[in-house]
Amino acid sequence: MTTERRKPRIAAVNEIARSRLFSIETVDLQFSNGNTAQYERARSQLVGGVLVVPVTVDGEVLLIREYQVGPDAYELVLPKGGIEVGETPLEAANRELMEEVGRGAQSLELLKVMTLAPAMMSHRTHLVLATDLYPALAEGDEHEPLEVVPWPLDDLPALVAREDFTEARSLAALVLAQYRLRALSR
Amino acid sequence: MTTERRKPRIAAVNEIARSRLFSIETVDLQFSNGNTAQYERARSQLVGGVLVVPVTVDGEVLLIREYQVGPDAYELVLPKGGIEVGETPLEAANRELMEEVGRGAQSLELLKVMTLAPAMMSHRTHLVLATDLYPALAEGDEHEPLEVVPWPLDDLPALVAREDFTEARSLAALVLAQYRLRALSR
Repeated sequence: MTTERRKPRIAAVNEIARSRLFSIETVDLQFSNGNTAQYERARSQLVGGVLVVPVTVDGEVLLIREYQVGPDAYELVLPKGGIEVGETPLEAANRELMEEVGRGAQSLELLKVMTLAPAMMSHRTHLVLATDLYPALAEGDEHEPLEVVPWPLDDLPALVAREDFTEARSLAALVLAQYRLRALSR
Repeated sequence: MTTERRKPRIAAVNEIARSRLFSIETVDLQFSNGNTAQYERARSQLVGGVLVVPVTVDGEVLLIREYQVGPDAYELVLPKGGIEVGETPLEAANRELMEEVGRGAQSLELLKVMTLAPAMMSHRTHLVLATDLYPALAEGDEHEPLEVVPWPLDDLPALVAREDFTEARSLAALVLAQYRLRALSR
Protein backbone atom coordinates (compact mmCIF):
# COMPACT_ATOMS: atom_id res chain seq x y z
CA MET A 1 0.00 0.00 0.00
CA THR A 2 2.93 2.33 0.61
CA THR A 3 4.82 1.61 -2.60
CA GLU A 4 6.08 4.85 -4.04
CA ARG A 5 6.55 4.20 -7.71
CA ARG A 6 7.55 7.10 -9.94
CA LYS A 7 4.73 8.05 -12.27
CA PRO A 8 5.24 7.57 -16.00
CA ARG A 9 6.64 10.66 -17.68
CA ILE A 10 4.28 12.21 -20.23
CA ALA A 11 6.50 12.84 -23.26
CA ALA A 12 3.75 14.24 -25.49
CA VAL A 13 -0.01 14.84 -25.60
CA ASN A 14 -1.68 15.32 -28.98
CA GLU A 15 -5.33 15.97 -29.77
CA ILE A 16 -6.26 13.71 -32.68
CA ALA A 17 -10.02 14.33 -32.88
CA ARG A 18 -12.52 16.87 -31.54
CA SER A 19 -16.29 17.15 -31.62
CA ARG A 20 -18.89 19.22 -29.79
CA LEU A 21 -18.79 16.99 -26.68
CA PHE A 22 -15.49 15.13 -26.90
CA SER A 23 -11.79 15.51 -27.49
CA ILE A 24 -9.55 12.50 -28.09
CA GLU A 25 -5.86 12.64 -27.23
CA THR A 26 -2.88 10.37 -27.63
CA VAL A 27 -0.52 10.38 -24.63
CA ASP A 28 3.07 9.21 -25.12
CA LEU A 29 4.32 7.71 -21.88
CA GLN A 30 7.69 6.60 -20.54
CA PHE A 31 7.39 4.29 -17.52
CA SER A 32 9.97 4.37 -14.73
CA ASN A 33 11.28 0.97 -15.88
CA GLY A 34 12.11 2.45 -19.28
CA ASN A 35 9.12 1.01 -21.17
CA THR A 36 7.38 3.39 -23.54
CA ALA A 37 3.79 3.27 -24.76
CA GLN A 38 1.18 5.39 -26.46
CA TYR A 39 -2.15 5.54 -24.62
CA GLU A 40 -5.39 7.17 -25.75
CA ARG A 41 -7.86 9.07 -23.63
CA ALA A 42 -11.13 10.88 -24.25
CA ARG A 43 -11.72 14.24 -22.60
CA SER A 44 -15.09 15.84 -22.24
CA GLN A 45 -15.49 19.40 -23.51
CA LEU A 46 -17.41 20.15 -20.29
CA VAL A 47 -15.75 21.85 -17.32
CA GLY A 48 -17.02 18.87 -15.34
CA GLY A 49 -20.23 17.08 -14.55
CA VAL A 50 -22.65 16.77 -11.66
CA LEU A 51 -24.86 13.83 -10.73
CA VAL A 52 -27.48 14.53 -8.06
CA VAL A 53 -29.06 12.16 -5.52
CA PRO A 54 -32.27 13.94 -4.39
CA VAL A 55 -33.65 12.27 -1.26
CA THR A 56 -37.06 13.12 0.24
CA VAL A 57 -37.94 13.19 3.94
CA ASP A 58 -39.53 9.77 3.36
CA GLY A 59 -36.19 8.28 2.31
CA GLU A 60 -37.10 8.05 -1.36
CA VAL A 61 -34.68 8.99 -4.09
CA LEU A 62 -36.21 10.84 -7.03
CA LEU A 63 -35.06 9.05 -10.18
CA ILE A 64 -35.95 10.17 -13.68
CA ARG A 65 -36.91 8.11 -16.66
CA GLU A 66 -35.05 9.58 -19.62
CA TYR A 67 -34.06 8.56 -23.15
CA GLN A 68 -30.36 7.59 -23.27
CA VAL A 69 -28.74 7.79 -26.66
CA GLY A 70 -25.87 5.41 -25.73
CA PRO A 71 -28.04 2.28 -25.45
CA ASP A 72 -30.95 3.90 -27.42
CA ALA A 73 -33.45 3.21 -24.63
CA TYR A 74 -35.42 4.85 -21.85
CA GLU A 75 -33.63 4.24 -18.55
CA LEU A 76 -33.94 5.10 -14.87
CA VAL A 77 -31.16 7.56 -14.08
CA LEU A 78 -30.31 10.36 -11.68
CA PRO A 79 -30.53 14.04 -12.66
CA LYS A 80 -27.22 15.19 -14.10
CA GLY A 81 -25.53 17.60 -16.44
CA GLY A 82 -22.52 19.71 -17.16
CA ILE A 83 -21.17 22.42 -14.89
CA GLU A 84 -21.51 25.72 -16.73
CA VAL A 85 -18.83 28.40 -16.75
CA GLY A 86 -19.12 30.49 -13.57
CA GLU A 87 -21.10 27.87 -11.67
CA THR A 88 -19.91 25.95 -8.62
CA PRO A 89 -20.63 22.21 -8.68
CA LEU A 90 -23.35 22.65 -6.03
CA GLU A 91 -25.00 25.46 -8.02
CA ALA A 92 -24.97 23.24 -11.11
CA ALA A 93 -26.49 20.40 -9.07
CA ASN A 94 -29.35 22.58 -7.85
CA ARG A 95 -30.02 23.92 -11.36
CA GLU A 96 -30.13 20.43 -12.89
CA LEU A 97 -32.41 19.29 -10.06
CA MET A 98 -34.85 22.11 -10.83
CA GLU A 99 -34.71 21.49 -14.59
CA GLU A 100 -35.08 17.72 -14.51
CA VAL A 101 -37.01 16.92 -11.32
CA GLY A 102 -38.87 20.15 -10.53
CA ARG A 103 -37.30 20.44 -7.07
CA GLY A 104 -34.74 22.68 -5.44
CA ALA A 105 -32.69 21.63 -2.40
CA GLN A 106 -31.95 23.64 0.72
CA SER A 107 -29.13 21.25 1.55
CA LEU A 108 -26.53 20.23 -1.04
CA GLU A 109 -23.42 18.26 -0.12
CA LEU A 110 -20.57 16.99 -2.28
CA LEU A 111 -20.18 13.24 -1.65
CA LYS A 112 -17.16 12.56 -3.87
CA VAL A 113 -15.65 13.43 -7.24
CA MET A 114 -15.48 10.21 -9.25
CA THR A 115 -14.17 9.04 -12.61
CA LEU A 116 -16.03 6.90 -15.15
CA ALA A 117 -13.23 4.90 -16.73
CA PRO A 118 -9.90 6.43 -15.68
CA ALA A 119 -7.93 4.06 -17.93
CA MET A 120 -9.30 5.85 -20.99
CA MET A 121 -11.23 8.96 -19.95
CA SER A 122 -10.43 12.16 -18.07
CA HIS A 123 -14.06 12.93 -17.25
CA ARG A 124 -14.88 13.57 -13.57
CA THR A 125 -18.35 13.75 -12.05
CA HIS A 126 -19.27 15.54 -8.82
CA LEU A 127 -21.69 13.30 -6.92
CA VAL A 128 -24.01 15.51 -4.86
CA LEU A 129 -26.52 14.63 -2.14
CA ALA A 130 -29.60 16.89 -2.20
CA THR A 131 -31.99 16.99 0.74
CA ASP A 132 -34.56 19.40 2.22
CA LEU A 133 -36.28 19.50 -1.16
CA TYR A 134 -38.90 22.05 -2.20
CA PRO A 135 -40.91 22.50 -5.40
CA ALA A 136 -39.02 24.62 -7.94
CA LEU A 137 -39.14 24.33 -11.69
CA ALA A 138 -36.58 25.73 -14.11
CA GLU A 139 -36.57 25.55 -17.89
CA GLY A 140 -33.83 23.27 -19.15
CA ASP A 141 -32.69 21.91 -22.48
CA GLU A 142 -34.80 18.75 -22.29
CA HIS A 143 -36.52 17.75 -25.51
CA GLU A 144 -39.51 16.17 -23.81
CA PRO A 145 -40.87 16.23 -20.24
CA LEU A 146 -39.12 13.78 -17.89
CA GLU A 147 -41.01 11.34 -15.72
CA VAL A 148 -39.98 11.41 -12.03
CA VAL A 149 -39.85 7.96 -10.41
CA PRO A 150 -39.51 7.84 -6.58
CA TRP A 151 -37.61 4.80 -5.32
CA PRO A 152 -36.87 3.76 -1.69
CA LEU A 153 -33.16 4.42 -1.13
CA ASP A 154 -33.07 1.36 1.11
CA ASP A 155 -34.11 -0.93 -1.73
CA LEU A 156 -31.16 -0.72 -4.12
CA PRO A 157 -30.94 -4.47 -4.83
CA ALA A 158 -34.39 -4.40 -6.48
CA LEU A 159 -33.36 -1.34 -8.49
CA VAL A 160 -30.16 -2.89 -9.84
CA ALA A 161 -32.12 -6.01 -10.81
CA ARG A 162 -34.13 -3.93 -13.30
CA GLU A 163 -33.14 -4.05 -16.97
CA ASP A 164 -33.74 -0.32 -17.36
CA PHE A 165 -31.24 0.58 -14.64
CA THR A 166 -27.73 0.22 -16.08
CA GLU A 167 -25.62 3.22 -15.12
CA ALA A 168 -22.73 2.23 -12.85
CA ARG A 169 -22.13 5.85 -11.85
CA SER A 170 -25.73 6.18 -10.61
CA LEU A 171 -25.35 3.08 -8.44
CA ALA A 172 -22.10 4.45 -6.99
CA ALA A 173 -23.85 7.73 -6.16
CA LEU A 174 -26.80 5.98 -4.51
CA VAL A 175 -24.49 3.89 -2.34
CA LEU A 176 -22.48 6.94 -1.26
CA ALA A 177 -25.76 8.68 -0.37
CA GLN A 178 -26.72 5.67 1.77
CA TYR A 179 -23.35 5.75 3.57
CA ARG A 180 -23.68 9.47 4.26
CA LEU A 181 -27.30 9.40 5.46
CA ARG A 182 -26.58 6.43 7.72
CA ALA A 183 -23.58 8.23 9.21
CA LEU A 184 -25.71 11.34 9.82
CA SER A 185 -28.49 9.35 11.52
CA ARG A 186 -26.14 7.71 14.01
CA MET B 1 -43.46 3.40 -13.68
CA THR B 2 -45.66 1.96 -16.39
CA THR B 3 -45.53 4.89 -18.79
CA GLU B 4 -45.06 3.62 -22.31
CA ARG B 5 -43.59 6.48 -24.23
CA ARG B 6 -42.62 5.92 -27.84
CA LYS B 7 -38.85 6.05 -28.25
CA PRO B 8 -37.34 8.85 -30.33
CA ARG B 9 -36.88 7.85 -33.95
CA ILE B 10 -33.24 7.76 -35.06
CA ALA B 11 -33.26 9.64 -38.37
CA ALA B 12 -29.51 9.40 -39.00
CA VAL B 13 -26.28 8.20 -37.39
CA ASN B 14 -22.99 9.59 -38.68
CA GLU B 15 -19.47 8.80 -37.54
CA ILE B 16 -17.60 12.09 -37.27
CA ALA B 17 -14.31 10.93 -35.71
CA ARG B 18 -12.47 7.66 -35.18
CA SER B 19 -9.31 6.68 -33.35
CA ARG B 20 -7.74 3.43 -32.18
CA LEU B 21 -10.00 3.19 -29.10
CA PHE B 22 -12.97 5.45 -29.88
CA SER B 23 -15.56 6.32 -32.47
CA ILE B 24 -17.71 9.45 -32.14
CA GLU B 25 -21.14 9.60 -33.76
CA THR B 26 -23.82 12.21 -34.20
CA VAL B 27 -27.36 10.86 -33.79
CA ASP B 28 -30.25 12.81 -35.30
CA LEU B 29 -33.37 12.20 -33.20
CA GLN B 30 -37.06 12.92 -33.61
CA PHE B 31 -38.95 12.72 -30.31
CA SER B 32 -42.55 11.50 -30.17
CA ASN B 33 -43.72 15.06 -29.42
CA GLY B 34 -42.22 16.25 -32.71
CA ASN B 35 -39.08 17.85 -31.27
CA THR B 36 -35.86 17.14 -33.14
CA ALA B 37 -32.32 17.22 -31.79
CA GLN B 38 -28.83 16.10 -32.65
CA TYR B 39 -27.10 14.14 -29.88
CA GLU B 40 -23.50 12.91 -29.77
CA ARG B 41 -22.23 9.62 -28.43
CA ALA B 42 -18.86 7.93 -28.12
CA ARG B 43 -18.54 4.26 -28.95
CA SER B 44 -15.66 2.09 -27.92
CA GLN B 45 -13.87 0.10 -30.61
CA LEU B 46 -13.91 -2.87 -28.22
CA VAL B 47 -16.51 -5.64 -28.51
CA GLY B 48 -17.22 -4.91 -24.84
CA GLY B 49 -15.41 -4.74 -21.55
CA VAL B 50 -15.11 -6.83 -18.41
CA LEU B 51 -14.47 -5.68 -14.85
CA VAL B 52 -13.64 -8.43 -12.38
CA VAL B 53 -14.26 -8.56 -8.60
CA PRO B 54 -11.89 -11.30 -7.32
CA VAL B 55 -12.83 -12.28 -3.76
CA THR B 56 -10.71 -14.59 -1.59
CA VAL B 57 -11.99 -17.14 0.94
CA ASP B 58 -11.13 -14.55 3.61
CA GLY B 59 -13.59 -12.05 2.11
CA GLU B 60 -10.90 -9.80 0.68
CA VAL B 61 -11.16 -8.29 -2.77
CA LEU B 62 -7.93 -8.18 -4.73
CA LEU B 63 -7.54 -4.62 -6.03
CA ILE B 64 -4.66 -3.49 -8.20
CA ARG B 65 -2.70 -0.28 -8.08
CA GLU B 66 -2.27 0.85 -11.68
CA TYR B 67 -1.39 4.02 -13.56
CA GLN B 68 -4.53 5.61 -15.04
CA VAL B 69 -3.95 7.94 -17.97
CA GLY B 70 -7.29 9.77 -17.52
CA PRO B 71 -6.37 11.47 -14.24
CA ASP B 72 -2.60 10.86 -14.78
CA ALA B 73 -2.24 9.10 -11.42
CA TYR B 74 -1.80 5.70 -9.79
CA GLU B 75 -5.18 4.51 -8.54
CA LEU B 76 -6.75 1.51 -6.83
CA VAL B 77 -8.89 -0.23 -9.43
CA LEU B 78 -10.28 -3.66 -10.27
CA PRO B 79 -8.78 -5.87 -12.98
CA LYS B 80 -10.42 -5.11 -16.31
CA GLY B 81 -9.99 -5.10 -20.05
CA GLY B 82 -11.56 -5.61 -23.42
CA ILE B 83 -13.32 -8.78 -24.54
CA GLU B 84 -11.32 -10.20 -27.44
CA VAL B 85 -12.90 -11.62 -30.58
CA GLY B 86 -13.96 -15.22 -29.95
CA GLU B 87 -13.95 -14.86 -26.15
CA THR B 88 -16.99 -15.05 -23.90
CA PRO B 89 -17.19 -12.35 -21.22
CA LEU B 90 -16.34 -14.92 -18.52
CA GLU B 91 -13.30 -16.14 -20.48
CA ALA B 92 -12.12 -12.56 -20.86
CA ALA B 93 -12.61 -12.02 -17.12
CA ASN B 94 -10.48 -15.02 -16.22
CA ARG B 95 -7.74 -13.99 -18.67
CA GLU B 96 -7.57 -10.45 -17.29
CA LEU B 97 -7.52 -11.84 -13.75
CA MET B 98 -4.51 -14.01 -14.60
CA GLU B 99 -2.72 -11.18 -16.41
CA GLU B 100 -3.28 -8.46 -13.83
CA VAL B 101 -3.61 -10.27 -10.48
CA GLY B 102 -1.84 -13.59 -11.04
CA ARG B 103 -4.93 -15.61 -10.12
CA GLY B 104 -7.42 -17.76 -11.98
CA ALA B 105 -10.96 -18.41 -10.74
CA GLN B 106 -12.83 -21.71 -10.62
CA SER B 107 -16.09 -19.81 -10.20
CA LEU B 108 -17.01 -16.88 -12.46
CA GLU B 109 -20.45 -15.30 -12.41
CA LEU B 110 -21.86 -12.38 -14.41
CA LEU B 111 -23.33 -9.87 -11.93
CA LYS B 112 -24.72 -7.33 -14.42
CA VAL B 113 -23.91 -5.56 -17.66
CA MET B 114 -23.66 -1.85 -16.89
CA THR B 115 -23.13 1.41 -18.77
CA LEU B 116 -20.71 4.20 -17.86
CA ALA B 117 -22.56 7.29 -19.01
CA PRO B 118 -25.49 6.21 -21.19
CA ALA B 119 -26.39 9.81 -22.07
CA MET B 120 -23.21 10.09 -24.15
CA MET B 121 -21.54 6.67 -24.44
CA SER B 122 -22.51 3.26 -25.82
CA HIS B 123 -19.85 1.38 -23.87
CA ARG B 124 -21.04 -1.56 -21.74
CA THR B 125 -19.03 -3.39 -19.11
CA HIS B 126 -19.67 -6.94 -17.89
CA LEU B 127 -19.22 -6.97 -14.11
CA VAL B 128 -17.99 -10.41 -13.06
CA LEU B 129 -17.63 -11.97 -9.61
CA ALA B 130 -14.60 -14.31 -9.39
CA THR B 131 -14.26 -16.73 -6.46
CA ASP B 132 -12.45 -20.01 -5.73
CA LEU B 133 -9.20 -18.36 -6.77
CA TYR B 134 -5.96 -20.20 -7.50
CA PRO B 135 -2.48 -18.99 -8.46
CA ALA B 136 -2.16 -18.59 -12.26
CA LEU B 137 -0.09 -16.08 -14.12
CA ALA B 138 -0.54 -15.08 -17.76
CA GLU B 139 1.48 -12.59 -19.78
CA GLY B 140 -0.56 -9.48 -20.57
CA ASP B 141 0.05 -6.14 -22.24
CA GLU B 142 0.98 -4.34 -19.01
CA HIS B 143 3.92 -1.95 -19.28
CA GLU B 144 5.04 -2.47 -15.69
CA PRO B 145 4.21 -5.04 -12.98
CA LEU B 146 0.99 -4.27 -11.10
CA GLU B 147 0.80 -4.18 -7.32
CA VAL B 148 -2.02 -6.32 -5.84
CA VAL B 149 -3.77 -4.70 -2.85
CA PRO B 150 -6.14 -6.93 -0.82
CA TRP B 151 -9.04 -5.00 0.75
CA PRO B 152 -11.83 -6.30 3.04
CA LEU B 153 -14.99 -6.35 0.92
CA ASP B 154 -16.96 -5.42 4.04
CA ASP B 155 -15.07 -2.15 4.43
CA LEU B 156 -16.10 -0.20 1.33
CA PRO B 157 -16.72 3.14 3.14
CA ALA B 158 -13.01 3.34 4.04
CA LEU B 159 -12.08 2.51 0.45
CA VAL B 160 -14.27 5.21 -1.08
CA ALA B 161 -12.85 7.74 1.38
CA ARG B 162 -9.39 7.30 -0.23
CA GLU B 163 -8.23 9.88 -2.74
CA ASP B 164 -6.71 7.17 -4.95
CA PHE B 165 -10.03 5.35 -5.35
CA THR B 166 -12.17 7.28 -7.85
CA GLU B 167 -13.76 4.86 -10.33
CA ALA B 168 -17.55 4.84 -10.02
CA ARG B 169 -17.79 1.61 -12.02
CA SER B 170 -15.48 -0.18 -9.57
CA LEU B 171 -17.65 0.88 -6.62
CA ALA B 172 -20.77 -0.35 -8.43
CA ALA B 173 -19.10 -3.72 -9.06
CA LEU B 174 -17.98 -4.06 -5.42
CA VAL B 175 -21.49 -3.32 -4.16
CA LEU B 176 -23.04 -5.86 -6.54
CA ALA B 177 -20.49 -8.43 -5.33
CA GLN B 178 -21.53 -7.71 -1.73
CA TYR B 179 -25.22 -8.15 -2.61
CA ARG B 180 -24.52 -11.46 -4.35
CA LEU B 181 -22.26 -12.92 -1.66
CA ARG B 182 -24.73 -11.94 1.08
CA ALA B 183 -27.57 -13.58 -0.85
CA LEU B 184 -25.48 -16.74 -1.26
CA SER B 185 -24.61 -16.92 2.43
CA ARG B 186 -28.23 -16.70 3.60
